[in-house]
Order: sequence, then structure tokens, then C-alpha cells
Amino acid sequence: MHNKIELYAQLINEDLYKYLDTYLEEYKVIFDSMRYSVENGGKRVRPLLTLLFCDACCGDVKKALPFADAVEYIHTYSLIHDDLPCMDNDDFRRGKPSNHKVYGEAFALLAGDGLLTAAFERITDLQKAGLYSADVAVKAIYTLSHLAGSRGMIGGQVIDLLNENNSNADFDNLKLMDSLKTGALIEAACVMGCIAAEADEDKINAATEFAQKIGLAFQIKDDILDVTSTLEKLGKMAGSDEQNGKSTYVTLLGVQECQKLVDKLTDEAMKALDAFQNNEALKEYAKYLADREN
Amino acid sequence: MHNKIELYAQLINEDLYKYLDTYLEEYKVIFDSMRYSVENGGKRVRPLLTLLFCDACCGDVKKALPFADAVEYIHTYSLIHDDLPCMDNDDFRRGKPSNHKVYGEAFALLAGDGLLTAAFERITDLQKAGLYSADVAVKAIYTLSHLAGSRGMIGGQVIDLLNENNSNADFDNLKLMDSLKTGALIEAACVMGCIAAEADEDKINAATEFAQKIGLAFQIKDDILDVTSTLEKLGKMAGSDEQNGKSTYVTLLGVQECQKLVDKLTDEAMKALDAFQNNEALKEYAKYLADREN
Repeated sequence: MHNKIELYAQLINEDLYKYLDTYLEEYKVIFDSMRYSVENGGKRVRPLLTLLFCDACCGDVKKALPFADAVEYIHTYSLIHDDLPCMDNDDFRRGKPSNHKVYGEAFALLAGDGLLTAAFERITDLQKAGLYSADVAVKAIYTLSHLAGSRGMIGGQVIDLLNENNSNADFDNLKLMDSLKTGALIEAACVMGCIAAEADEDKINAATEFAQKIGLAFQIKDDILDVTSTLEKLGKMAGSDEQNGKSTYVTLLGVQECQKLVDKLTDEAMKALDAFQNNEALKEYAKYLADREN
Repeated sequence: MHNKIELYAQLINEDLYKYLDTYLEEYKVIFDSMRYSVENGGKRVRPLLTLLFCDACCGDVKKALPFADAVEYIHTYSLIHDDLPCMDNDDFRRGKPSNHKVYGEAFALLAGDGLLTAAFERITDLQKAGLYSADVAVKAIYTLSHLAGSRGMIGGQVIDLLNENNSNADFDNLKLMDSLKTGALIEAACVMGCIAAEADEDKINAATEFAQKIGLAFQIKDDILDVTSTLEKLGKMAGSDEQNGKSTYVTLLGVQECQKLVDKLTDEAMKALDAFQNNEALKEYAKYLADREN
């Protein structure tokens, strides 16, 4: 793995908690709850993409760090809310009890709300993050809030809920769902990296294209893994989508066609990265993402 | 009522929906759900304060309109999440079925998330809201996200949950809870009005003082009304706090002492408004708030 990737992952893992460590004793539990889920955070794909895109635009990655934190807070909140009984009702997340199993539903709900709100506080807390201009902050917040909002990620979750037990959902519907539910936040992560570097429109468009392709590839791969993985590898019950009677790419196209589509989308995503001068680490990471097996 | 108050209420009621009317058919239900709760929105106290403080600072209230919408979206999301079964489990809100009784828990949860996110999208969507500088937008977002976040409104909700069935909570604990749960968002509303007008620190401090005093007065008054009101007047079951075995200002101090405290806080809040030149409409509205009976 490119040494920048390790370095950036370390930067992110150090920075993520700095904003979650000042609080009154009276409401400490919400910070415990937020940190619990941020700590159980997996591979930091989205914030790494933010720093790697900033770097690929020859920007200073320190400027992108608040945006990286923000996108990870939003990703984490979406998982906490997704796991709640009224949503997917998942007792486990990455092999550990989900937030509401540890803190109860009310504090899980509020921890999600808190992380969503903290994303925007982090970006605009200029005493801590004042490395960029207000213009840059406003562009980043618009990108993030639009793509994470009801016309983006949340809209995708709505379509996902409507598709539950609907084995008639077609490819276009699944694609729209995933481009919103998964793709939109990945797009925000990539584009915010370019915004931190004050990159031009061409680079932002290339980042958008990369994100949409890799995001869809990612989700199709998830469907493949959902069928083929085991509990040990993935940290949640394998095959859960199928058990719920949901349409997936795999039920629509089969594993082999799905893998072909993943390969095609990955190729197109990789080509989009040619728009960036300094793209060595980013390309390596994109290849790693494409090849992942959990 | 001062004619500005009617005019501003109309401006707000027209503007609130403009940002909730573009969406894809596939996720329309989330917009229906968000609008349902925004429509059932009561008296628009917080956004009115935003416009009235902007006006009191001799600012252009049109510039404050996106901030007013944002604060109302956040207030509305907090009510939707508060009413959920895992929180207060309220079936009614202002005499109408609460959001989850109409749209189900999942869509209510997501509608809350959507409104919270929309607050920040609304402020930074410069194509629609580009009347102010990026500096002003960043200041407003920091104020709003800090005061609505885990160190603000959400922190207050956490303390409220911890106090449930705790009849030992003392005055200081209740005051901290309310200064966060209710006061913080009112403070954000008032301060954002000053920020829209690019007012100086003295005015922002006066707005903060006003908000903290009136916010606490507001909450003590709520406790009084919770005991004395009837279902018809308030639109929810009267005396519900007492039934839950919660400590309230009324159980700690009694109705009469509470009313005295409300009067004192209201006086102090009104005095803080002397810092504003153009405070006629604002003072009239503050007086109306102090005298309200539901």
C-alpha cells in the first residue's frame, strides 16, 4: 500500500476524535455513544478519498481534514440510524453490537443526530479548522448537505425501504437507489477533497464521475459479498438481503454478470482519475477498493 | 400586533416550502413527510425571532430568510424525533397525529434527518440564497450547528432523558437542561438574525442574553401550562410531565414561584433589547411571547 494511504488513515484516525472530546459530564453519554460508533468505523474509505483527492489536486491535505471528519461523521450517523429497529433492525455492525444495543434506541437516535450536526460544526469551527476560506467552507457544506440529504443519501434510503419485500424492483430502480444511498456520499467525499484544494470544474467533474462509477461498483460488490461472504469475514449475517426477499443486483443479474459490471465500472472509474496530475496514491487506493473482499 | 410581525410570518410561511418542493417521484414520500410536520408548525416563533432580530439591527430581512427556514427545519426535525416511540412516544403534536403515526417510524426518522440536513443545504445553496457573503453563511452555520448539536439542543435532550422518572433532579439540573434543550435553538434563531445583518459583537451578546432569559421563561411557562392547560388549548394531553414522574419547575417551586420567575426573566430579556435601535416590532413580539397562554 502506498505510504501516503497509511499516513492519511493515521491522520484521520487521530483527528476524528478531537471534535468529540469536549463535553459536560451531564450529557457525556451522547459523546460515548457517538465515539463508540466512530471507533467501530472500519476502513475510513470516505475520508481517505477526501484526502487522496485533495492530494491528487496538489492541495494541502490538512485543509481537507475537517471535510474528511465531516463525511465520516455523516457516514457513521447513517449507519447508526440504519441499524435501528424501525429501519434494518440490525443487532450487529462490523461484528460488534450496534449502537442501540449498547446505548439504547433513544441515545442511538440522538448520537446519529449529534454526528450529523457535528459534521457542519466541524467544518465551520474556524478556530479549529480555519485553514480555508469561507468560500471553500460554503462550497463543501453545500456539496455535503445536498448529497447527504433527502435528494441524495436519504432519498436512496427511502427508495431502499420502499423496495423492501418488493422482488419486482428493476435494474434502473436499484441503480437509482444505490447512486443515492451509497454513491452520493462517496461523491461528496471525493468532490470535497477537490474543493479543499480549490481545484477547477474539470477536476470536480472527474471526481464526480469516478465517485458515481466506483460507488455503483462498490454496491454491486456488496450484493455479491452479501451472498458469498461468511459471518467471520463481513461481521454481519451473510445473505441477509436475500432473506428479506429484496431484489438485488445478484437476484436480477446473477453473480457472474454482476462481477463483469463491477469490472467495467471500475475500469471507467480508474480512467476518470487520469484528469489528476498527482494521482499515484489515489489510483492505488481505488484499485485496492475495487479488489476488496469484505 | 405590529404589522411587521404579520408580514414576516407570511414571508416565512411562503418561503419554508420552496426548498421542499423539488424531488424525484421515487422518494416523494420523504418530502410529503417533511412537509407534513413543517405545515403543522405552530407559530413560527424561532424564524420570526430571526427576522425580527435582523430587522432590529437594521438589516435586510430577505437576507435572514434562509437562516429563518433553517432554524425552523431544525426545530421541526427535533419534534419529529422527540415524538418517536423510543423517545417521548407522543401520538399527537399540536392536536394532529405525530409524523410517525402518519408515515411510520422509518420515514419519520428519515424526515427528521432530511430536515436537519436541509437546514445546512438551504443556507449554502447560494443560487437560491446568495444574498449574503460566504463569511456570513459560515458564521450562521457555526452558530446553528453548535447550538443545535450535542453540546446544545441535543445535549439538553440527553439530560431530559436521563431525568426521566428521576424526581430528584434539582433546579440547576433543570435549568441546564432547558438552557440547552429549548434555549440553545432560540439563541441560534436570535443570533442568526444579527449575523444576517452583520451586526457587531455587542448586539450579538445582547441577542444571546435575550434568548437565554426568554428561553428559560418559555420553558418554565411550558411547565406551568402543562399543569394548568386543557387538551383543547394545548393540543396534547395536559399534565403529561407529572404523569411521567418527572421533576419540573412546578414540582420544585410551585406554580406561583414559577410565575414570578417567568416575570423576572421576561423583564431581564426585555431590557436586553434596549441594545437595538430598531426594536419596536421585536419588543412587541417578545411581550406577546411572554404573555402567551398556549
